[in-house]
Amino acid sequence: MVRVQDACHRITSRAVYARINAPHYTASAMDGVALRAKDTFGATETTPVILKKEQFIVIDTGDPVPDGCDAVIMTEDLVINDDESITLYAAAAPWQHIRQIGEDICAGEMILPSFMEISPAAIGAMIAGGILEAEVFARPIVGIIPTGDEIISPCADPKPGDILEFNSSIFSAMLRDWGAEPKIYPIVPDQPDRIRDLLSRAAAECDMVLLNAGSSAGRGDFSVSAIREIGEVLYHGIAIKPGKPAILGYKNNVPILGVPGYPVSGIIVIEELLRPLIDRWFNRESELRSRTRARLTRQVVSGLKYQEFVRVRMGYVGNKLMASPLPRGSGVVSSFMKADGLVEVPQGTEGFTSGEEVRVSLLTSKKRLKSTLVVIGSHDPLLDELADLIHRDNHSMFLSSAHVGSMGGVMAVRRGEAHAAGIHLLDTETGQYNISYIKKYFPFGGVHLVRCVGRQQGLMLQKGNPLQISSFADIAKDGVRYVNRQKGSGTRILADYLCHTHNIDSESIYGYEREEMTHNSVAVQIAGGSADAGMGIYSAAKLYDLDFIPVCVEEYDLLIPEGVWGSGLIRTLIRTLKSREFKERIDAMGGYTLDRPGEIIDIS
Amino acid sequence: MVRVQDACHRITSRAVYARINAPHYTASAMDGVALRAKDTFGATETTPVILKKEQFIVIDTGDPVPDGCDAVIMTEDLVINDDESITLYAAAAPWQHIRQIGEDICAGEMILPSFMEISPAAIGAMIAGGILEAEVFARPIVGIIPTGDEIISPCADPKPGDILEFNSSIFSAMLRDWGAEPKIYPIVPDQPDRIRDLLSRAAAECDMVLLNAGSSAGRGDFSVSAIREIGEVLYHGIAIKPGKPAILGYKNNVPILGVPGYPVSGIIVIEELLRPLIDRWFNRESELRSRTRARLTRQVVSGLKYQEFVRVRMGYVGNKLMASPLPRGSGVVSSFMKADGLVEVPQGTEGFTSGEEVRVSLLTSKKRLKSTLVVIGSHDPLLDELADLIHRDNHSMFLSSAHVGSMGGVMAVRRGEAHAAGIHLLDTETGQYNISYIKKYFPFGGVHLVRCVGRQQGLMLQKGNPLQISSFADIAKDGVRYVNRQKGSGTRILADYLCHTHNIDSESIYGYEREEMTHNSVAVQIAGGSADAGMGIYSAAKLYDLDFIPVCVEEYDLLIPEGVWGSGLIRTLIRTLKSREFKERIDAMGGYTLDRPGEIIDIS
Repeated sequence: MVRVQDACHRITSRAVYARINAPHYTASAMDGVALRAKDTFGATETTPVILKKEQFIVIDTGDPVPDGCDAVIMTEDLVINDDESITLYAAAAPWQHIRQIGEDICAGEMILPSFMEISPAAIGAMIAGGILEAEVFARPIVGIIPTGDEIISPCADPKPGDILEFNSSIFSAMLRDWGAEPKIYPIVPDQPDRIRDLLSRAAAECDMVLLNAGSSAGRGDFSVSAIREIGEVLYHGIAIKPGKPAILGYKNNVPILGVPGYPVSGIIVIEELLRPLIDRWFNRESELRSRTRARLTRQVVSGLKYQEFVRVRMGYVGNKLMASPLPRGSGVVSSFMKADGLVEVPQGTEGFTSGEEVRVSLLTSKKRLKSTLVVIGSHDPLLDELADLIHRDNHSMFLSSAHVGSMGGVMAVRRGEAHAAGIHLLDTETGQYNISYIKKYFPFGGVHLVRCVGRQQGLMLQKGNPLQISSFADIAKDGVRYVNRQKGSGTRILADYLCHTHNIDSESIYGYEREEMTHNSVAVQIAGGSADAGMGIYSAAKLYDLDFIPVCVEEYDLLIPEGVWGSGLIRTLIRTLKSREFKERIDAMGGYTLDRPGEIIDIS
Repeated sequence: MVRVQDACHRITSRAVYARINAPHYTASAMDGVALRAKDTFGATETTPVILKKEQFIVIDTGDPVPDGCDAVIMTEDLVINDDESITLYAAAAPWQHIRQIGEDICAGEMILPSFMEISPAAIGAMIAGGILEAEVFARPIVGIIPTGDEIISPCADPKPGDILEFNSSIFSAMLRDWGAEPKIYPIVPDQPDRIRDLLSRAAAECDMVLLNAGSSAGRGDFSVSAIREIGEVLYHGIAIKPGKPAILGYKNNVPILGVPGYPVSGIIVIEELLRPLIDRWFNRESELRSRTRARLTRQVVSGLKYQEFVRVRMGYVGNKLMASPLPRGSGVVSSFMKADGLVEVPQGTEGFTSGEEVRVSLLTSKKRLKSTLVVIGSHDPLLDELADLIHRDNHSMFLSSAHVGSMGGVMAVRRGEAHAAGIHLLDTETGQYNISYIKKYFPFGGVHLVRCVGRQQGLMLQKGNPLQISSFADIAKDGVRYVNRQKGSGTRILADYLCHTHNIDSESIYGYEREEMTHNSVAVQIAGGSADAGMGIYSAAKLYDLDFIPVCVEEYDLLIPEGVWGSGLIRTLIRTLKSREFKERIDAMGGYTLDRPGEIIDIS
């Protein structure tokens, strides 16, 4: 039983019947006078009826209608005379302007059936019907046990080897959304008896238990044997990916779910296995995510053995809904945050080809997807700043960027998958940026090139330059560990070109095949000490406090297909590029020059 | 700033940037050994490479990769020799099975832009990025001041004239759904200075204030003058219905909304006026209800002067989505609870005709509407019991009933607006129920009649029968106050027939034109003392502890159109009619006989 006021969105465990009538007395629906209708019969404009003081009672809205009265006349429909009698020019119909007892709810009538969600209006109806407490299903208490020697509570300065325990925070938020009550237990190290003891305690204290094991084989076994020792294991290992090491068991009536340690696996497993148990607890139907069809921008290869869930970013370009697969590592929690949908690759199929239309379970509303500017191409942190500026000024608009390199951006625009692509492609013969590529890949036009920024490219080096690298050629020296960008990125094309002009065989460069997808991640490897040098932009070097040898200033522009030119999304983008706020943000990042951003570059 | 763990669904007030990398160290992605890739070069099936103890380090998933190592080989891909050396049959690619620093999130990168809702996965991403507290918009505190002399806190035994104050409970639940924090002030009586003082205090303590005034003209004026005394009134009276007496004002930056006292008016006014202010507070776009088109089952007449919101019950019958207008009284809170949608009648139009297709804002999901059995026709409380039984056993199924009388049900089935109609129509010539009506209104067939219950009809009288009424004819006696059912109901037809057979002029019966829509509401008027007698079924008399003079046992059956016969909804209905649980419920209500319920009646 909970107070009705606190019962919003709870589920009734039995039908609710009214205890009193609403209204619970015969009430005036107007300000006016109460009287006997038959006393007014015959009153017309020409034959008014005068009632004496004892024949009527002045009454306000909500007042009880006095015994013997069966009608109310509104103040505006009567004339009060000096002797305090009233004159009426129309007869009253019996029961006019009276709220009958039970007009809203009759005592004994069902207000809500069993197993129904209580809405705000239902709270009002219950109180009106004299119900002050509701019988609702208790929220199931779901115990969460994080395990692992290396797992530590969230902090801002973890030591190498420490793994921040954030799964319980993600799971708790999901559980609360589903109406359950999370109960997080302290982190247990990888000691079988301690895991077993805590599991046993949790199974006694909770309605369901999540045992969040590390993902290594050895550790998973601790979970299975702990569940087996205190209860039963139903199965270990399910044919879904991510999530295959999941375990389902129980102790008495308490389900125990062994959840893999990687966050994305964990999210998928509790969505697929725990959520249905919670819906069953509340006797409610599972709410399916809305589904739609979208076109894959890249192929998805999957194993035959598993049903795989692939996270995708989505966007409408023109009328086509596109789905771009996100990184599939199950440790990459940011990919789940960025996902707009999930593509399910059924067991027994090998995946989907690029351009194939697939069914997607939506994590975002279609409306939001329709107002999302899709930018695919070369990475630059300025895209995040643009996303922020655009959304701040236009609450209904979003910018979603994917980093696939400049050539990837050109191809995405060509296939109609992006509203814009950031590109910085050097024509090594002319020294000119972007234009010759556009002429080659868009021989019949159909695109605009919009000026964005000039940006300082160069060699990022460890702070203080301990290896005394003084030019690009030095990266081939013995003992220098290089870290590269992926093929197709403008920065990789620049690095390849520099190797060529410096006559360096890239095979002789240690780490040349070590590829990162963004300027920042190259800079991070150098700052972290696992590499000594890498090409990148000045703002990344500055962010991670690295040394920097400038190489060139390149033109980073935006390629925009004609088909979306003039749309609200693009007009907002261009307005933002021209704004003072954009200039301020860019200036703060360092290493950029602005020359009429937002203007169209002549590519004829 | 709130703890990230507590920030789910809050809105970021500024962009969130990562403080640390995730992973924050170079980590093994597998259980195995860490080594230098170049030590393994040349290893193949035929030319294995043996590494000595000092050349590799055993490592678990998540462990930091030791300095100098640049690859991990999985346990299953190596052979451990007796001398603790290992043999490899394949070379390692540099950086294989290693999670690079920042693979998930790079320090300094934007995790979330400003003005974004925080999802469970975003909580994980923030913690992974070293963010333990989030800057989010504070929830606006919305003060709610209930006013009125007759208003009392919810209780189970109000006295006549007491009005239960449940508006603040409804509004609070709505406000919480929108992310605001309600603050309910004590009820203030209708005294201008006390209202003004409390309003002034609330405007100082809250971010927005709702002044919930009674609906009488005098009381509304207290609100206007209170707001005017402490701040400014922007407007008083808006062209919407219900809700026209609304007031908008402010004190400093605090909006003050004068909300009419009737609950439905209040709900509409805070939806239309307050919700946009809350969305603005969070810098988020207003979420519009999804809209659809539906066919009106009855005409809707509206005044030219107002934009009117009409509550409708909805259902799919076949492929047609139907919308039946609900009672429009703004005091009827149960009508809002039952509403599946709102039809907006624009200002300057006079309404819609019956059968017209109109736009509806949905309050219920289309999916639920598709699994709702629509029963329109004669009222019987057994329909509520059926609704409960059906939903208990079939969580995805709902039964929605509307009470328009037996003839209304026949017409609804004829127009294709209902899956079923409860009817009990007496053919006064043959004494037979229902069949002759079906032959008349469905001359070409196309309907089935399904046996439901026999029910005891009779005259309900005040407890103890103080007026000593002994037969139907006595209702015409002087001093007897009758209460009737609406025209078209089976019970009214029966009453008219009894008047005819008893040779009574219905004009001579006091209250014969006083119409109620259900058996229960007739019984309630008698129990409440405002009437002495009325026709109705035994279960209603029993529920309200009334005396009862049996008149006849009538056949209450269900009329079902051929077009939906065989559908899952109808099959579930018939299975439920035949169930033991249905029999138990019916027996407990009293006054019913069951004879093979759920069987088809031969109407040929």
